[in-house]
Formats: sequence, C-alpha cells, structure tokens
Amino acid sequence: MAKDSYLVALIGSGIGPSLTPALHEREADRQGLRYLYRLLDIDALGVPPEAVGDLLRAARDVGFDGLNITHPCKQLVIGHLDALAPQAEALGAVNTVVFEDGRATGHNTDVTGFAASFARGLPDAPLERVVQLGAGGAGAAVAHALLTLGAERITLVDERPERATALADALTPHFGTGRVTAAAPDALPALTGAADGIVHATPTGMAAHPGLPLPARLLHPGLWVADVVYRPLETALLRTARALGCPVLDGAGMAAFQAVDAFRLITGREPDAARMLTDIGELAGAVTAPK
Amino acid sequence: MAKDSYLVALIGSGIGPSLTPALHEREADRQGLRYLYRLLDIDALGVPPEAVGDLLRAARDVGFDGLNITHPCKQLVIGHLDALAPQAEALGAVNTVVFEDGRATGHNTDVTGFAASFARGLPDAPLERVVQLGAGGAGAAVAHALLTLGAERITLVDERPERATALADALTPHFGTGRVTAAAPDALPALTGAADGIVHATPTGMAAHPGLPLPARLLHPGLWVADVVYRPLETALLRTARALGCPVLDGAGMAAFQAVDAFRLITGREPDAARMLTDIGELAGAVTAPK
Repeated sequence: MAKDSYLVALIGSGIGPSLTPALHEREADRQGLRYLYRLLDIDALGVPPEAVGDLLRAARDVGFDGLNITHPCKQLVIGHLDALAPQAEALGAVNTVVFEDGRATGHNTDVTGFAASFARGLPDAPLERVVQLGAGGAGAAVAHALLTLGAERITLVDERPERATALADALTPHFGTGRVTAAAPDALPALTGAADGIVHATPTGMAAHPGLPLPARLLHPGLWVADVVYRPLETALLRTARALGCPVLDGAGMAAFQAVDAFRLITGREPDAARMLTDIGELAGAVTAPK
Repeated sequence: MAKDSYLVALIGSGIGPSLTPALHEREADRQGLRYLYRLLDIDALGVPPEAVGDLLRAARDVGFDGLNITHPCKQLVIGHLDALAPQAEALGAVNTVVFEDGRATGHNTDVTGFAASFARGLPDAPLERVVQLGAGGAGAAVAHALLTLGAERITLVDERPERATALADALTPHFGTGRVTAAAPDALPALTGAADGIVHATPTGMAAHPGLPLPARLLHPGLWVADVVYRPLETALLRTARALGCPVLDGAGMAAFQAVDAFRLITGREPDAARMLTDIGELAGAVTAPK
C-alpha cells in the first residue's frame, strides 16, 4: 500500500514566521497527500539548542517521516544521526533529516536548493570570479553550491574576517587550493571591479536590517547579482542592481528549492518546483513581481 | 489564531486494522481541519506494553494534541498521566489522552461512547435486569456505561468466572451493593429467562471467532440484545435475535461514539456524530444495512 500521509517538523529557534510549513503543506495538498508540518521552536519549548538530539529521537520514535533543522541546531544535530549525505558531510551542517526504518540520515538542501535556484534563474551566468558577501551558515551553503556549479574562484568577504578565513579553509580541502579565498571588506572595490557576479548571504536587506550590503557605487552592469534574502523579495541590493541592468536572482528560489528538495527526500515524490516557486512569492507577500 | 491542525496517534498492539484513524480523519476533512492520525503499534515498534510511558512523553514533547490508547496499554498508561477524568478513574482504564499546556489528561470514551450509542439506539430499553456476557476490558466499559444509564442489576457472565467476580467487585464500590454480580455460565438459562436484555462483550461473532456466545434457545422475544462486535456489524447473535423480533443494537455505535467523544475532547470541536456513524458502517464494510 502506498504511503499517503506524512509527518514533518522544523526544529530551531524563533521559527514562528517560517514559510516552509506552508510550502510543504501546499504542495502536499496539490498532490492529495495528508501532510502535517509542525514547528518545534526550542525557545517556545524552553529547551537549549543541545536538546535537538532528544527532539530528534522523540520524533523518530513516534513516527515522524522527516525534519527540517535550522539555526542554531544545524551543526548540533549531526552527532545524533546515523548517516550523512555528501553535501551535509562536506559542509558540516544539516537542514533536512529523513527517517527510514528507524535510521536518521542528514541532508543539506540549502546547498542543493541554492544550486537549483541559481542554475534555473541565472543559467548563463559566468562563474570565473565571484565575490560572496557573508560567510555564516547561509554563506557556507551558497559557497558550497557555487563550487559544485563550477565557480572557478570565490572570494569571501565578511564583516568578521576570521569567519571568511575559516570558511575558505573549510572548503579548500573539498574543492582544491585557490578556489575559495577570504578578503577584507576594504578589498571590495578591486574585487567587484574584476568580478563576474556578486552573491549576497548576510541579513542586510531584510526588514529588520534595511540597506545595502555594499556601497552602491561598486555595482556595475557587468555583474550578475544573487541575493539569499527573500523577505522582501525585492531587496535594496536587487533593486539597485536591476536599475543598472544587471541580471539578478532573488532569494525566493533558494527558499523554494530547499523545500522542493526536502519534500522530495521525505516523500520520495516529485514536487512541482515551479508551483512552489510561485507559492513562495505569494507567501512572502511580494508587492512587486520580481523576475 | 484558531488552531487548525491536529496530530493524534493510537498506541496499542495489533492495531493495524483499526478504523479509528479513518473515522477521525474523515470527520476532520469535513470540518476543513488538517488532521493526521497515526498508528503506534508496539508490536511493529518492537517495544513492550510498558513502553507506553516513553511513547506518551515523546508524543507530548513533539507536539501531539492527543492519543488513543488500546489493549494492552489502557491500564499501564495511567501512571504516566497528570490527571484523570472521573470515568477513567473509576474504571481504572484510559483510552484517550489529551495534551494541553504540556499536561496529559486521561479519559475513557469507551464508557461514554457505549452510553451514547445505547441511549441513541435503544432509548426505551428496560434496564431492570441485564445479563452481560464478557467481563474483559470492553466488558468493564460497557458495564460501567449501563450502570451510569441506570441499570438496576447487571449479572456478569464470563468463561473465566474469576474475571466476572473481579469486575463485579471493582464496580460495586462505585455503584452500590447488589447492582453488579457475577454468575457462572451454567446460570445463563435462568438469567436470560428473567432478563430485560443481553449485552455481549466477548470476541465471539467476529470473523476470527464465529458463532453464538450463548445457546440460541436462550434468546426470546422479550429481550433486547446489544453487541459490541462491529466487524461484522451483523453478528450471528444479532441476526438470531432480530429474527425473533428482539430490538437490537450493533457495535457500530460504540465504535463511532468512542471516536466522536475523543474527537471532541482533542479538538474542542463538535463532530457530526450521525455522519461518523455512517462512516463506521461504510468502513466496516457492512453488506447488509443493520438498523
């Protein structure tokens, strides 16, 4: 008998506004599946991030099919898993757990999600020289994805230079010397002048962090610009870049495709990625209709 | 914001064929709720009945709204609850657990379900002298329900006479001396001759236990006959009794109303009991259409 019901939760801190439950449930409803996606917010539960192991075991024991994991548990969960998919292992971070026959396998669909979004949204973008702003959790996934897509050289810039250096050091053994380096913010003018594109992976541009992540004068028509922020979809960065004629990619794709890939892993069914991309636009409350 | 999703499971042994998940989910679908009802079969999980406490805590921790509990865990679960409803406390058995604000409260909707079914299906049945066949778990709930409906005297008959005696002894402190007594099977001819009705609470008549639970010659038109078996709805007992002209009550009502009452407790919403009664008939695969 085909399995037709699914039970999934997101574990993390401050996850109340997450759009992922609605993304999964809308797609499941279209497929005629009984699908329940719950939030397990460690703040609301009053437990520390280290409780992710107990929550994972409880979810497994009562028959959950899968979990999404977010900040601050993506690294902490790894010690409680039975197996890791290659991207998750290379990145040292898990955002999706699939339960099967009592075993928990960790995946990272932030990586595969950004890669799918980029390949779809900027298919012809040159990847010889990429400048990446932000080397935190999202930045690690994005850099990893760009390298798997063939980026020849990525320069990481973070307001905390040691974080950029640490991420470059972590990626180099997997992708080879010289493909990822770190630079200080004052190197940005020279870097952006010579770059093919810029990828942005800091919170700047979100409602709570308005503004541009770099001086507007550093943008020029020879760049493509990709943003991971998706609330709003039209960030100041993308608006400015679009006005210059740059090809742009908003954060909807990464948000949608991390869910597309997680849905596929958890259910074994092929989701309608185009429809989920439309969903994220609706759910994120886009006022304008970004490309 | 009104809660619109519910997560529920049934814990017990050999529960694969249970119709309760479908009963809850059908009613929830009609009400437009997202409702997932899972089976936690201790046999399939490879855990002993005593694991019901661990499963209950895990379900609470990951946000279940409620549980149904069945054989062999209805008594074992009690030590893991924070509070008990009166029927559950009197009976020493819980079939429904409601989680609220991290607290687990036990209820017994087998009792309230049989009472509702009987009051609906045999509203004018005299209750001065009732003979009850079977003093196991279902029998305890049924006897308790009949006493709350005002049965003046119930005589319990079980193939294991000590079980009938134990149940009579357990009920007497709650309902008064003389209202429940035990008798040996060889007393049945005298008992049925003087009785107003017979309630049947053994497995006899189920597909795996065909036949009549008492000699056909002991049935007579002056009896009402109620059966707790609902697969099939038309048992040999009810068929024989109906042919004699006895008012009869099949097991669909108890099966439906235990779910009606559990659904109401878990969701706080009023289910459509008539529709759930129709559902159980459809789900039980009734070939004939019993009254």
